Amino acid sequence: MFIVDCDCHNYWCSATVLEPYLDGLWKDMFVRGERTGPVGAFPHGHRPWFHPEGFGRADVQPQTEDDNYLIMKEKHLDKYNIGIAILTGDEPIESSTLANPHYAAALCRAYNDYQIDYWLPKDERFMGSIVVAPQDPHQAAAEIRRLGAHPRMVQVLVSHGAQRPYGDPFYHPIFEACAEVGLPFAMHLGGQGGVNATPIGAGPTTFFWETHALLPQSAMTHMASLIAQGVFEKWPDLYCVIIECGVAWVPSVLWRLDSNYRALRKETPWLKMLPSEYFRRNIRFSTQPLEQPKNVQHLWAVLEAMDGENTLMFASDYPHWDYDDANALHIPAKWREKVMGLNALEVYKRIPRPLAVAAE
Amino acid sequence: MFIVDCDCHNYWCSATVLEPYLDGLWKDMFVRGERTGPVGAFPHGHRPWFHPEGFGRADVQPQTEDDNYLIMKEKHLDKYNIGIAILTGDEPIESSTLANPHYAAALCRAYNDYQIDYWLPKDERFMGSIVVAPQDPHQAAAEIRRLGAHPRMVQVLVSHGAQRPYGDPFYHPIFEACAEVGLPFAMHLGGQGGVNATPIGAGPTTFFWETHALLPQSAMTHMASLIAQGVFEKWPDLYCVIIECGVAWVPSVLWRLDSNYRALRKETPWLKMLPSEYFRRNIRFSTQPLEQPKNVQHLWAVLEAMDGENTLMFASDYPHWDYDDANALHIPAKWREKVMGLNALEVYKRIPRPLAVAAE
Repeated sequence: MFIVDCDCHNYWCSATVLEPYLDGLWKDMFVRGERTGPVGAFPHGHRPWFHPEGFGRADVQPQTEDDNYLIMKEKHLDKYNIGIAILTGDEPIESSTLANPHYAAALCRAYNDYQIDYWLPKDERFMGSIVVAPQDPHQAAAEIRRLGAHPRMVQVLVSHGAQRPYGDPFYHPIFEACAEVGLPFAMHLGGQGGVNATPIGAGPTTFFWETHALLPQSAMTHMASLIAQGVFEKWPDLYCVIIECGVAWVPSVLWRLDSNYRALRKETPWLKMLPSEYFRRNIRFSTQPLEQPKNVQHLWAVLEAMDGENTLMFASDYPHWDYDDANALHIPAKWREKVMGLNALEVYKRIPRPLAVAAE
Repeated sequence: MFIVDCDCHNYWCSATVLEPYLDGLWKDMFVRGERTGPVGAFPHGHRPWFHPEGFGRADVQPQTEDDNYLIMKEKHLDKYNIGIAILTGDEPIESSTLANPHYAAALCRAYNDYQIDYWLPKDERFMGSIVVAPQDPHQAAAEIRRLGAHPRMVQVLVSHGAQRPYGDPFYHPIFEACAEVGLPFAMHLGGQGGVNATPIGAGPTTFFWETHALLPQSAMTHMASLIAQGVFEKWPDLYCVIIECGVAWVPSVLWRLDSNYRALRKETPWLKMLPSEYFRRNIRFSTQPLEQPKNVQHLWAVLEAMDGENTLMFASDYPHWDYDDANALHIPAKWREKVMGLNALEVYKRIPRPLAVAAE
């Protein structure tokens, strides 16, 4: 089976790997300036919720920069026969939390150049993400256009923590650039600090485990906002990919959105379909961490209600604490080929279709 | 069948009905002071999302204060053979949005006295709610103790819009008073303005219909917080009732809470059960507005996953725009007696058990 891993984190040991890709004021700030952690930390406004054990898997302990790839190759890419791994970085999406959008944009440019120089040549299976800082949509759009023609950059990536719901017209320059270069807009769990809005309604909550359980709320908001604000009417071919935000909540939100839209659609006369129809056409979810009920049939009923066979795409979240094993993903057997890889080929059109798959 | 309606709104034509129950500074502010609407409006910090048609049913148009009861009797209580209607007021829970907690508490006291004087004597089927302003938990606790022995006051009621997640120790004086007088703690959708926290993660959203679809987020937060902060270990017999916040999202949140708690329980060593076990023992949901999927089996799988037969309680939300008809509630037929009434008798122990039901 052809597997596309839609969320594979390429770590660094130290953010100093970005130094060669920065210059002028930004290099000076990066080398000499204050940051949240010690020298080597990536600048960002840290969440107030601290993971009580750290995010990494205990068995992934790189000692050198090269280890980051070598361990990934051994414990993930080769072990599970991953066909394509879409690199999602790790800290770079946290640039969304910085008050200074110019610095945030410079850090994203540096990361993207480093990713293209250092990571993509390491393995043919790697595809990259153009990370942008959404707090200045115009600089973000410029970065999308700068790198949008690169054949191995397959999506635009931001954190799901944001200053506003992503449907807001403030962000439309980003979607315009995505549409122009033909790339999906992806958001990944993260960015819960600094200048971003509180990620949780009636929050903030207190403990890491309860907070992490509630973080899908921001994704609910973005999904509703992208639909209601008409983003998928303005750019009908745009895919939005929502990564690491859970999936079992999706039908419950779509049912409410559809009911309310039916009753009060006059508020948004630009829409031509039900919210659930925009979802089905334009939005995709990565699976990890797939919810784990006692009775898997309850989950499968929910996944069926969101047409999961066609809207879900496998992700491992390597090498995080709540990693999902590609062999053990608890989805209906007859969905496996689509969810493990074929659905991603529809969304990420730059991924070369393997001969074995093309023949099917 | 014995029907308990857990969310029946007793409206007024004008908040001036509260004048006889206020005195001193509070009466002066109420009569002469600034407020969100015209004279007759209840003081509150209004939401920034405006319902494009208003909240009321088009066929409920009271012209006098007496009409509020007479129309309810005709179009709801008698028509659907409601056995018990728990009054939830309407604007009074919006007192939670006021910056001045002393004024908010005075308004709640006035409403509670008016409710007992005016509404409870009108119909034997009415039971009341002690509305409190949670922004001063000590005054709220005093109000709970002042009225807690009244035989027809069956719950303590707040808005689900709040300054903090309700599990926060700040609010524990309220739960202590609830436990002392033996009443459930109920939260009802509302309070999305003024001093309360943004109700939606990564918000604010823009349109009423999308916002209303997302308002369950605050209830998710409160549910997680009440469990994680150990409220149900401190007060194991306390029921929390969540009103008008939807239900189909509940399993998805419980699945994440259970998974995360299993992995990271060391953060909250005072807990002795899984989050889903506290939910099952201590939390109940009212049904309205029950989600309306294309395929009702998808909803029923979700309701089964939350043991809806035992955790759901019927509510009509009379006379609001999205009212649920007691005869048309789309739940499994064999659950009807429990969900329509018997579950409420377990939670609201002051409701007299009718002879017909007692014999079953």
